Amino acid sequence: MGKERSEKERGGGENNKRNLFVSCVVMNSCAAELKLLLTALLVICSVATLFQILPSRFTISASDLRFCISRISTSNTSFASLNSTPTMPPSPSPPSIRKDQVADNGVIKRVFNPYGSAAYNFITMGAYRGGLNTFAIIGLASKPLHVYSKPTYQCEWVPQSSSASNSTFSTVSYKMLPDWGYGHVYTVVVVNCTFSEAVNSENSGGKLFLEASTSGGGDRDFNITDRFEVLNESPGDINTTLFSSKPKYDYLYCGSSLYGGLSPQRVREWIAYHVRFFGKRSHFVIHDAGGVHEEVLEVLKPWMELGYVTLQDIKEQERFDGYYHNQFMVVNDCLHRYKFMTKWMFFFDVDEYIHVPQKKTIKSVLDSLSDYTQFTIEQMPMNNKLCLSADYGRYYRKWGFEKLVYKDVKRGIRRDRKYAIQPRNVFATGVHMSQNVAGKTTHKTEGVIRYFHYHGTVAQRREPCRNLLNVTEINFENNPYVLDTTMRDLAWSVKKFENQMIGPRLKNTRQ
Amino acid sequence: MGKERSEKERGGGENNKRNLFVSCVVMNSCAAELKLLLTALLVICSVATLFQILPSRFTISASDLRFCISRISTSNTSFASLNSTPTMPPSPSPPSIRKDQVADNGVIKRVFNPYGSAAYNFITMGAYRGGLNTFAIIGLASKPLHVYSKPTYQCEWVPQSSSASNSTFSTVSYKMLPDWGYGHVYTVVVVNCTFSEAVNSENSGGKLFLEASTSGGGDRDFNITDRFEVLNESPGDINTTLFSSKPKYDYLYCGSSLYGGLSPQRVREWIAYHVRFFGKRSHFVIHDAGGVHEEVLEVLKPWMELGYVTLQDIKEQERFDGYYHNQFMVVNDCLHRYKFMTKWMFFFDVDEYIHVPQKKTIKSVLDSLSDYTQFTIEQMPMNNKLCLSADYGRYYRKWGFEKLVYKDVKRGIRRDRKYAIQPRNVFATGVHMSQNVAGKTTHKTEGVIRYFHYHGTVAQRREPCRNLLNVTEINFENNPYVLDTTMRDLAWSVKKFENQMIGPRLKNTRQ
Repeated sequence: MGKERSEKERGGGENNKRNLFVSCVVMNSCAAELKLLLTALLVICSVATLFQILPSRFTISASDLRFCISRISTSNTSFASLNSTPTMPPSPSPPSIRKDQVADNGVIKRVFNPYGSAAYNFITMGAYRGGLNTFAIIGLASKPLHVYSKPTYQCEWVPQSSSASNSTFSTVSYKMLPDWGYGHVYTVVVVNCTFSEAVNSENSGGKLFLEASTSGGGDRDFNITDRFEVLNESPGDINTTLFSSKPKYDYLYCGSSLYGGLSPQRVREWIAYHVRFFGKRSHFVIHDAGGVHEEVLEVLKPWMELGYVTLQDIKEQERFDGYYHNQFMVVNDCLHRYKFMTKWMFFFDVDEYIHVPQKKTIKSVLDSLSDYTQFTIEQMPMNNKLCLSADYGRYYRKWGFEKLVYKDVKRGIRRDRKYAIQPRNVFATGVHMSQNVAGKTTHKTEGVIRYFHYHGTVAQRREPCRNLLNVTEINFENNPYVLDTTMRDLAWSVKKFENQMIGPRLKNTRQ
Repeated sequence: MGKERSEKERGGGENNKRNLFVSCVVMNSCAAELKLLLTALLVICSVATLFQILPSRFTISASDLRFCISRISTSNTSFASLNSTPTMPPSPSPPSIRKDQVADNGVIKRVFNPYGSAAYNFITMGAYRGGLNTFAIIGLASKPLHVYSKPTYQCEWVPQSSSASNSTFSTVSYKMLPDWGYGHVYTVVVVNCTFSEAVNSENSGGKLFLEASTSGGGDRDFNITDRFEVLNESPGDINTTLFSSKPKYDYLYCGSSLYGGLSPQRVREWIAYHVRFFGKRSHFVIHDAGGVHEEVLEVLKPWMELGYVTLQDIKEQERFDGYYHNQFMVVNDCLHRYKFMTKWMFFFDVDEYIHVPQKKTIKSVLDSLSDYTQFTIEQMPMNNKLCLSADYGRYYRKWGFEKLVYKDVKRGIRRDRKYAIQPRNVFATGVHMSQNVAGKTTHKTEGVIRYFHYHGTVAQRREPCRNLLNVTEINFENNPYVLDTTMRDLAWSVKKFENQMIGPRLKNTRQ
């Protein structure tokens, strides 16, 4: 049906042009006026034609819905301003509605008329090289499209200089869905495109286009392909030694989406602890989905100035309804964006503190795990209310990991793990582990590395201490706890380290 | 972000116009050429403006996605034909891609570029009057839009004659989601629109438009409203007595979507049985989602010719992925389409046979239930393999309900019920019952009305009899069965009735 309709529309357009031409020729006006009209005709035809041709092989405009939306969102204003214009042209006629038809044998042929758009086909966050001939594109796609249909993806490389070779298409293109089952309107997609040979090997620039096909997901009559630029390399842009040279960092932290009214003091403690813990060859990528308000930014700024922290403002993703501020998209963007910048990449939250036993260092531990592409890290859950009587009268000045000293020791509970990877061997990642790795994964890291988890302390701004105790063991709210001062004992060193690095400028930070 | 962007785009447009005007004025060309240029300018501006204004209050084009799709599907051809035209204008530049930006404080502001469309906002099947001032619109809408967002609907009535009063908007508009939880890409929506007073009361014609708003479902930055015609009443079209007069039929059957390789013989038996059962003041609406193939059509044709059967070809809905061939949409369309045509409306399947006890008639039973808007009907599940030894050698000539005589009597199993309604008091309906009724519903219909269910006999074309028995009770495949010849005993009368009504033309029908 759709095909018939568009053919009719095309035919109509041609007839109009012909009529216009005829009426122009039969008019016996003077030459100047004819010239005038011909110019007008040329302009009309040019504009009409402009709306028909499109630049690509699949001849798909890169942003159909955006085009539609901008028409919609601007039209109200336009209409108001046009009301005062006396030369307002007539409104365009609405699209023809197909009607039910009764066949000769009495059967009523029902038609179904579709309107508008409820979701984008694809939303890009980032596209990154994974080597000389391979790329990763990270974004969101319509979830029902992936649940009930099989959308496909392909890449096209278009060299910048027209004298260079023609555009080439990826020979291997596959998608990974790292948040499968968790998305809402949108689900996270990581597309891997690999070409049969190196692209842009002359470093003369070019563009990577993604072609995203719906495979009839929203309408079985159409396999709509949207084609759009995802990466633009200028001449001289790529440094091919990057892929094989020693990375700039040893440890890079990829944070998940930060959201809500975070406690500046807790964030201050977390970053000071981890810069000290990971050391000079480390870097922290923080993703602000709305949680890095002014006061939180204040505690990050000193470390940003020292080059330890990169803050990514990802607030715009809130437009698109995925799982928890699109955290799965964010960690995958981070993975591919910093893939060649670090030997190890860590994924955990800002209420979690990585720790290695006293006689080890993070370097010695990771050297011992270097055969593994991925390892997971055991959780030490810390109570977020129970503090020490010894801190009576001054607990509000103590740091979170200094005063919260009771560890949950309930057995037989499956607790979340966090993880680290060697990113050059990883193709997509999750929040608790990656399922798309080349190489080995180990979970046997007890006694080597672990993390202390102060759940519910960062997303609130009130004092956490509620009960002051002077016991080494307690059963609280039907849960057994033991005193564990491992982290408390480090507080003094961390405070000293912070002061050495950035001075006392954060001393008035509030919880 | 989106708002900023569109404002910027608008601003850009104005600047361009201004520049053009300035360059035009400073040029010292002759008056004729200036006139020429001004005409061209006027035309360009007019065309540009045409693309901005839209006819409605919400100023939304009725079919944005269709517009996009037709651009896509036609552009290939256009491009090819243009290649041979020497005067081909330059390609339009692709839509500008917004790029990430680094703020002064070092924060990387990430942008998310959306492309294309994965689902329609709304797909219409039908729109029907429910009275002088109320309408029902039946269609499909994007499911995640309804699960994760709150799309809204409103109706607008536009009188045909421009001298008549202005267009009016519905004062009450609500949606019902009769298949909640079962949809795929799309979910079924029944919109009820009620106006404060009668519309088209002068019977001078007019159009009903539905305005479907996404409420930011696919993109929180935009509340996109699609406005489209759903009903067109020509002058003199409405017969207002319809809503209060006695309906044409006493009993109308609304069938669900028929799909697959149905057995023509089983359908022949079913329709003959039910035309006899419901009698002269009955009608059957069959929905063909692909199941009414040539041989099935043959057995329906005689009854269509007698006016007992209306066949609705709904195959086009297969384009849109909902629950089981969009059966929830289909029954709701049937409800509203035939609401004023019948006193009672029945919803059951073509492998089910309604039955009332021997001393009752369907009329006496329904008269006794006339206080109820809805009643449900108990199931008698019949085994679809077990036949009688008495039929040995000739069972393939017997009718399905004649030879399948063993009734499942396992207790304590919740079995599906089917139902009937008085449709004037019903606003939306389901497959097993309606949850949107005014008035009472009863389930206490045992001993009054029931249905025999021959599950799995219609969707296959092989002989059902597998085991021939001569017992009155049996335990078969861990289930107790008893002999029940209620339906078998009616076979002779039904065959005779069929022959009286349509002659022997179906005698060679195959299973």
